[in-house]
Amino acid sequence: MEKTKVVVVGGGVSGLTSALLLARTGKYDINLISKYLPGDYDIEYTSPWAGANWMSFATKEDKRQQEFDRITYEYLVELAKDMPSTGIWSKKVIQYVRQEDLEKESGLLGGLAEARPWFADLTPNFEPIARENLPKGYVQGITYDSFCINTQVYLPWLQSQLFVLGVDVRYKTINHIREAFDAHKSGQRAAIVVNCTGLMASKLPGVMDSKVYPGRGQTVLVRNHAPAMYNVSGTSDGDDEITYIMSRVGGGTILGGCYQQGNWNGTPDPNMAQRIIQRCLEICPELEQDGKLDVIRHNVGLRPSRVGGPRVEREKSPDGWLVHNYGAGGAGYQSSYGMATSVVNLVEQALLE
Amino acid sequence: MEKTKVVVVGGGVSGLTSALLLARTGKYDINLISKYLPGDYDIEYTSPWAGANWMSFATKEDKRQQEFDRITYEYLVELAKDMPSTGIWSKKVIQYVRQEDLEKESGLLGGLAEARPWFADLTPNFEPIARENLPKGYVQGITYDSFCINTQVYLPWLQSQLFVLGVDVRYKTINHIREAFDAHKSGQRAAIVVNCTGLMASKLPGVMDSKVYPGRGQTVLVRNHAPAMYNVSGTSDGDDEITYIMSRVGGGTILGGCYQQGNWNGTPDPNMAQRIIQRCLEICPELEQDGKLDVIRHNVGLRPSRVGGPRVEREKSPDGWLVHNYGAGGAGYQSSYGMATSVVNLVEQALLE
Amino acid sequence: MEKTKVVVVGGGVSGLTSALLLARTGKYDINLISKYLPGDYDIEYTSPWAGANWMSFATKEDKRQQEFDRITYEYLVELAKDMPSTGIWSKKVIQYVRQEDLEKESGLLGGLAEARPWFADLTPNFEPIARENLPKGYVQGITYDSFCINTQVYLPWLQSQLFVLGVDVRYKTINHIREAFDAHKSGQRAAIVVNCTGLMASKLPGVMDSKVYPGRGQTVLVRNHAPAMYNVSGTSDGDDEITYIMSRVGGGTILGGCYQQGNWNGTPDPNMAQRIIQRCLEICPELEQDGKLDVIRHNVGLRPSRVGGPRVEREKSPDGWLVHNYGAGGAGYQSSYGMATSVVNLVEQALLE
Amino acid sequence: MEKTKVVVVGGGVSGLTSALLLARTGKYDINLISKYLPGDYDIEYTSPWAGANWMSFATKEDKRQQEFDRITYEYLVELAKDMPSTGIWSKKVIQYVRQEDLEKESGLLGGLAEARPWFADLTPNFEPIARENLPKGYVQGITYDSFCINTQVYLPWLQSQLFVLGVDVRYKTINHIREAFDAHKSGQRAAIVVNCTGLMASKLPGVMDSKVYPGRGQTVLVRNHAPAMYNVSGTSDGDDEITYIMSRVGGGTILGGCYQQGNWNGTPDPNMAQRIIQRCLEICPELEQDGKLDVIRHNVGLRPSRVGGPRVEREKSPDGWLVHNYGAGGAGYQSSYGMATSVVNLVEQALLE
Repeated sequence: MEKTKVVVVGGGVSGLTSALLLARTGKYDINLISKYLPGDYDIEYTSPWAGANWMSFATKEDKRQQEFDRITYEYLVELAKDMPSTGIWSKKVIQYVRQEDLEKESGLLGGLAEARPWFADLTPNFEPIARENLPKGYVQGITYDSFCINTQVYLPWLQSQLFVLGVDVRYKTINHIREAFDAHKSGQRAAIVVNCTGLMASKLPGVMDSKVYPGRGQTVLVRNHAPAMYNVSGTSDGDDEITYIMSRVGGGTILGGCYQQGNWNGTPDPNMAQRIIQRCLEICPELEQDGKLDVIRHNVGLRPSRVGGPRVEREKSPDGWLVHNYGAGGAGYQSSYGMATSVVNLVEQALLE
Repeated sequence: MEKTKVVVVGGGVSGLTSALLLARTGKYDINLISKYLPGDYDIEYTSPWAGANWMSFATKEDKRQQEFDRITYEYLVELAKDMPSTGIWSKKVIQYVRQEDLEKESGLLGGLAEARPWFADLTPNFEPIARENLPKGYVQGITYDSFCINTQVYLPWLQSQLFVLGVDVRYKTINHIREAFDAHKSGQRAAIVVNCTGLMASKLPGVMDSKVYPGRGQTVLVRNHAPAMYNVSGTSDGDDEITYIMSRVGGGTILGGCYQQGNWNGTPDPNMAQRIIQRCLEICPELEQDGKLDVIRHNVGLRPSRVGGPRVEREKSPDGWLVHNYGAGGAGYQSSYGMATSVVNLVEQALLE
Repeated sequence: MEKTKVVVVGGGVSGLTSALLLARTGKYDINLISKYLPGDYDIEYTSPWAGANWMSFATKEDKRQQEFDRITYEYLVELAKDMPSTGIWSKKVIQYVRQEDLEKESGLLGGLAEARPWFADLTPNFEPIARENLPKGYVQGITYDSFCINTQVYLPWLQSQLFVLGVDVRYKTINHIREAFDAHKSGQRAAIVVNCTGLMASKLPGVMDSKVYPGRGQTVLVRNHAPAMYNVSGTSDGDDEITYIMSRVGGGTILGGCYQQGNWNGTPDPNMAQRIIQRCLEICPELEQDGKLDVIRHNVGLRPSRVGGPRVEREKSPDGWLVHNYGAGGAGYQSSYGMATSVVNLVEQALLE
Repeated sequence: MEKTKVVVVGGGVSGLTSALLLARTGKYDINLISKYLPGDYDIEYTSPWAGANWMSFATKEDKRQQEFDRITYEYLVELAKDMPSTGIWSKKVIQYVRQEDLEKESGLLGGLAEARPWFADLTPNFEPIARENLPKGYVQGITYDSFCINTQVYLPWLQSQLFVLGVDVRYKTINHIREAFDAHKSGQRAAIVVNCTGLMASKLPGVMDSKVYPGRGQTVLVRNHAPAMYNVSGTSDGDDEITYIMSRVGGGTILGGCYQQGNWNGTPDPNMAQRIIQRCLEICPELEQDGKLDVIRHNVGLRPSRVGGPRVEREKSPDGWLVHNYGAGGAGYQSSYGMATSVVNLVEQALLE
């Protein structure tokens, strides 16, 4: 029997993971089309600019987001243990919270600023940091085991798994989401289009989701090593700046960062870079091996943020079934398997109707 | 028994492949250090800018180069067949030669311009193109089966295999080749340093090879597809320009190119880009799907060329054994396994002395 | 008697011209502060990316815009005649209109698409092009004498005139428009702040004008010469693309272009560049001297467009008098003296209250 | 009588100044052709990347270089006093020398490291700095009055003066110096070609001066102000790094730098940028207004250095008289009027033969 034709649109982490989990079911003949693919760098293509790691921002109330993140965590456990080729490894997180951020109704960290976040029982070695062990200026802290994803390795790895599973991956730009139904290489019309267009969902005709906006992030990639991953609730450099450190396997440490809503500027701001470096050195002086930081480059990425959270749902469009999977904001990697699991379910449901 | 410590310097295709073949012997405790790693783009780091494919330039007389290329061809046969995750696939080459290039003593193509190159019996489906089937302006042509390597996939794949084999890979810059002996993570001194520094071999103290010079190449990466790989012996746009087309698995086609000796300029020349596009459309009008080329980006890479050919040899330096593996020019990928095989032998010989 | 302190914010053509006309009155002690100044290139700084020329888009009804453009035209007449150091010269415009653009209620050209625009009696040698002399595909055409402004020369010239008149010009970034009142070098509080922040008026606290949005333009600067300036009403490459050619004194021709509303992307789109080149060659084949175009660079600028037109008005803010002068869209240069004349009047009125 | 046709090749400070002084004689019909012109930024075009100021490196013995610099100083006196539109102003230099640099036979500063350089009687307010007033680590110091040239203003100003004097300036690339003889707009053959091709003199057929090599410089342009210009004899960051600060009129301060011989890399090195910033803050802590540096951008320029010093001489080539004026290294601005004065003399002599 012929397999159902599916076209996945988007070569970022959401599209690649959706295609991967769909391909593993063995039920579909999948094509992935994208304007950009792993190895490309462009401001329209967010995934390669990411850190990335797992630090769930889900609040206690947001069960849907928790589920996305929990499922992903469980995949990451396996990948870090059994699959070094993915560029994922286990790494401890150390997190500090300032008094003023505790008092905010909603900070940039969301549920992460809670003394005992929802994932306290999920992540091994979760424990509060005793007040006397906190650096000056912080009033609360936690530590737990998590993962760092070297996106330079992991993104090509995802693509290479699609090759292994026979998914056809290729460059293609479309001017309307409906064109994707006719983009299957077989020449047959796709039964399902999975829309993983990220930030571009705000501009692509047929989607034009006005809830989607950029959450600009800027980081510095350095050759130096950090003993752990760090995360801080806020800074004195403005409400849209944050501080974090991610230590990648295969070397390289990401220093962050910021979250600038509505800012589309793709050029690194040299002054923000200076502030980021200074803040990261303050919380992790061990970074400065041999007395200096060794910068590889300055990154800017536009997180695909969305008012009300990610859109993971199906839609019966005039052209056929659309399954949407975009708008993950800063959680693209850490929610990827959870969101893609929903995609698999939504595709199955759509085909049953 | 403790394994011999080896430090490989250089994260390009030469360094990664050398580390890979050394690691597969199971005899060494290997660290790879590099200023750049897969996923990085910098003008000092040539490998990610490459096409790449297998089109041996070795002349009939150059048995050493033939051996490098032959060994690599045999590896590529296996990878293309069994390992789709590498981003390598089999693809036919179509090559045209102009009258004036036949008459040159030594053109940019080297042995490739011969009517029956040394590899005629190695590559399946090798055959001359009948005169009447040649496009206007060409007097000789051949076709044969070869491979295209999607470097955006293959380079991270090489690195991920090192992770699987337990090679420690990390960012590190050195100011003298001797520092590499002290760069092994174990804290012990390395018995062997494998020098795969490419173009930087011309500048690194302790190596400073004045025979090494840049062979600047510029290409255009387009989303369009080409039915085959193409190669042309010369152009009317100047002696340092050439024309070639490489069709990558996973989409994307590389349009080339040039070979500008001694030119260090890392910025794409917009006028050369126009000439490349025009020449490629002339030899492969099928490129223009939907009536237009869809450019992803303009690339510039500096091939690590070397007067007299690559340096693959051992040297007893005051600091210990150096095994050199650099200077492959435009043959970095297509000679990689051959050169790395020599590295394995040279390391073994050095340790026996 | 001490002169009134004025701070002008913004180093683009609007700010520089406002400061110039204010300085010429001799009544004020003026400081100009800006994040960027002539000679800088940044996507936040639009003026240096401009063509520029005089081609009024004002409709027959829009008397205010006509006045801005008329006053500027009269200044340009003088500058082109008497001041070659400005980089401004007189040049003929040739304009073609397509049938489909005539039928549109409002195209990108606005009043320019009219058979007899409001400026027909202002610009010397205005005349319609006879139907039989129009290129194929066009149904209407006009020609008239106008000016091309070499922005690489003119913008520094404006700044140098401020030096001559004793205006203090310096780099300074502010985080709220109110900070400008305290930015006068004298240490005294400014009586007036003139706000010429262009596109940044949409983001600067204390202004945050939500009517301001980017009108992205992309051009190609070539070394080739064109015999005249050209302008075409529309293209078949999409509603947001246009075609124009500007011939600069001192060499260099600008090929355009597009007008992409709401697009913040600062990177040149290589495919749009190809389309622009092709369209310009179609309407002006003489461009191709020696059989080729010689590209200097690809430019992207974000026009400071504004719903309802530019904001040129005074506002009594809690911190003092603000005189706004921003939102000129694509008319920044051609309205500059008109708008700055209003600024001079608004400053005088404010000081009288 | 018809004026003698002269073509000047090169739009950097040397070419513009040569054309200016030739034009002022009133004897010639001059065209200036160049691949780049003021307002362009490209790694092949050095002048816009310069600081610039007057700090003569001439040794006591080098009378020719002294003459170039002395003549230029005298022009700068006038320009700074009478012509604010040039972007040149008078500024005090403070210079410190380290013990180890005194002992070097020849450091990067040349004659500048002498306790009493040749210009001690030329520059007003020259005086040694008393030992007790030197910062720690320095053993010698001088201070004197000099000039800072805001190259963003001055380079376009030079071009605008050529417009005023009727010099035809335009973009044109040539593939051999002989083509310049046929590049005069009159259609007549030029009697003289003045070759001001800078670093490109090493690559232009017909010149191909193998003594010319790049002296790579990197600087940081910041919005902050410095009270004076600073200069230091050496650093502990390597033999090719130096420290200097230039305060521009119209705002902006240049922090430098380095002098890397033979290095063609056009990309700013982020780590060198950090070192430059740190060193400049050490010698001028006043830079940090409001507790931070405000970076505009990172610059890289390739000084046109030449073994044996600049080439300012005439040559009877097979195609006609060439007058060469290139190879000024880091002295392009501070020798410009002196070298151009020689050009005027050489042109006159050539025409007499």
